[in-house]
Amino acid sequence: MSIAAPTDRALARRQQVLDAAAECFRRRGFHAASMAEIAKTAGMSPGHIYNLFENKDDIIAAIVERDCEDILARIAEFRQAGDLLEQMLAGTEDAIDEHSQVAEAALQLEVLAEASRNPKLAAVVQQSQALVNEKAQELIRQSLGDQADTLPAGEVQGRALLLGALFNGLTALSVRDPAMSQQVTTLAPVMRRVLQVLLAP
Amino acid sequence: MSIAAPTDRALARRQQVLDAAAECFRRRGFHAASMAEIAKTAGMSPGHIYNLFENKDDIIAAIVERDCEDILARIAEFRQAGDLLEQMLAGTEDAIDEHSQVAEAALQLEVLAEASRNPKLAAVVQQSQALVNEKAQELIRQSLGDQADTLPAGEVQGRALLLGALFNGLTALSVRDPAMSQQVTTLAPVMRRVLQVLLAP
Repeated sequence: MSIAAPTDRALARRQQVLDAAAECFRRRGFHAASMAEIAKTAGMSPGHIYNLFENKDDIIAAIVERDCEDILARIAEFRQAGDLLEQMLAGTEDAIDEHSQVAEAALQLEVLAEASRNPKLAAVVQQSQALVNEKAQELIRQSLGDQADTLPAGEVQGRALLLGALFNGLTALSVRDPAMSQQVTTLAPVMRRVLQVLLAP
Repeated sequence: MSIAAPTDRALARRQQVLDAAAECFRRRGFHAASMAEIAKTAGMSPGHIYNLFENKDDIIAAIVERDCEDILARIAEFRQAGDLLEQMLAGTEDAIDEHSQVAEAALQLEVLAEASRNPKLAAVVQQSQALVNEKAQELIRQSLGDQADTLPAGEVQGRALLLGALFNGLTALSVRDPAMSQQVTTLAPVMRRVLQVLLAP
């Protein structure tokens, strides 16, 4: 018999709600999506959902935190794997493809639009960004090695921010130009040269 | 006596509605903002607004078209002024500053989030992007001069898209990190090196 421990089960149920909510927010927007709809999409009763999350704000904050954890885990993998620039140059096509998925873009844009007028969500988004930016800077510093110390103040911070802007921008642009996801081979060579500027010593 | 011609007056009133609607969409989001609220913000009766625009979809589409015209006018100015890379390098700080205004970001993100689930708005956004991208490519081609013909197929398209991604990304990132607008001097040197990659022959 394999019955999950209560905490694992609660965690799995939370993930299930976050997946359902992400789908509802994508499809209908944060405000139009109701807790009833999220419950239905998750295959749970609204009562179950309210046992796990206080309200929709609480759910969207948990989605942002989960995304943040995913990015931090990715950064940790990069740190372990060695040469960052080499890895990024090898994975350029995949990175472009991943950041130009319209469905994922829809959720990210909805989160950012909501954060721009919801102070509680803004705080969660900003805290996530601060963490990601800090770890991205550490990653860039590591990949620059001894060269990092010779760079002007703010150089690593500037590189980390522009790297973030580039990937956030692909996501935003994929809504303006859904054909972008078919332009990976057009974008990749130019992107590689930009990555050199951002990641080479 | 200086009474504006009816068409000028109607145009001015349309602008007045678009400004008011932009403010309401920023503050409350597209769905929560009502035509009554837009009318009040514009200092007009709802009846007047409905004389000028059919509905909220019509207003948001007109905002996108106006933004598109602004960008096309800017591109035309760049074309007239001569060396694009030189102009961009001289105006890097201003360009970063302009693209990291949270209030403007809020509206852009709201438009894109709505476009990702509203096919009618998506068509307007995509048409605008196609126009902007076409003109941006012409601009880059002009600035590359004879070199443009020697580049691999798709190179100019790739550069234009990444330039767009970069500026769209600054806008998105300004919500994640509102302190970014104070980091112009940190970002500018790195941005200049990226602009070299995107705009130099």
